[in-house]
Amino acid sequence: MAAIPDSHDDLLTKNGYLHLASLGPSGEPQVHPVWYEWDGTHLLVSTTRTRQKTKNLARDGRVAGSILDPDNPYRYIEIRGVVDSIEDDPPSDLINRLAKKYLNEDKYPWDTPDPQRVIVKIRPEKANVMG
Amino acid sequence: MAAIPDSHDDLLTKNGYLHLASLGPSGEPQVHPVWYEWDGTHLLVSTTRTRQKTKNLARDGRVAGSILDPDNPYRYIEIRGVVDSIEDDPPSDLINRLAKKYLNEDKYPWDTPDPQRVIVKIRPEKANVMG
Repeated sequence: MAAIPDSHDDLLTKNGYLHLASLGPSGEPQVHPVWYEWDGTHLLVSTTRTRQKTKNLARDGRVAGSILDPDNPYRYIEIRGVVDSIEDDPPSDLINRLAKKYLNEDKYPWDTPDPQRVIVKIRPEKANVMG
Repeated sequence: MAAIPDSHDDLLTKNGYLHLASLGPSGEPQVHPVWYEWDGTHLLVSTTRTRQKTKNLARDGRVAGSILDPDNPYRYIEIRGVVDSIEDDPPSDLINRLAKKYLNEDKYPWDTPDPQRVIVKIRPEKANVMG
């Protein structure tokens, strides 16, 4: 995790939003706010197999993300990195952990039956920080 | 402004952050949180002539942006659009208006002398909303 300055690594475990930028089918940028978890090496994001975002990430693994400190909007981190893997998560473990982190609920309340959840593992390669 | 649903057009004038995704020199995504103003047709962003972000936007005008409602993080808008123009702003009018909006200051307090401010005009073409 050399890419993340110690001064801002707390943002990886706080309840901020990761604004995740990926590339669409024509190489155009797309960006979405998502929940995330940090495992010490990767930012983990939960999505579903059939979403546009997942297709984008499988086609071209180059991503960027920005996170504002929820306690101080003049403090933030921007990362650039790559998707190392997109793994099936049939028990929905990650989204349930994220529901605990963000909603204090044991189970993510808004999924359809058989949501085909996947875990996207993003490895930061560079970071810029402010504040 | 057909691209912006009426249900979420308030987000264009609230004090949220626009997480602006652009394309770097190799077509890779980059994303930065920025202040913004809505003029009825364009999202206006202030930056400086020499920054990477400005060079990105001049090279390839395809952009995306996401804005969380500062009062409700489960409500947001994602836009995709294009840069219609990048205009010199030698009096720094836009950044001073943004300082008023976000800081309640008449003048942006953090610029260097001769900052070479520019106004980036982004025209939304599509929007997705949540919440």
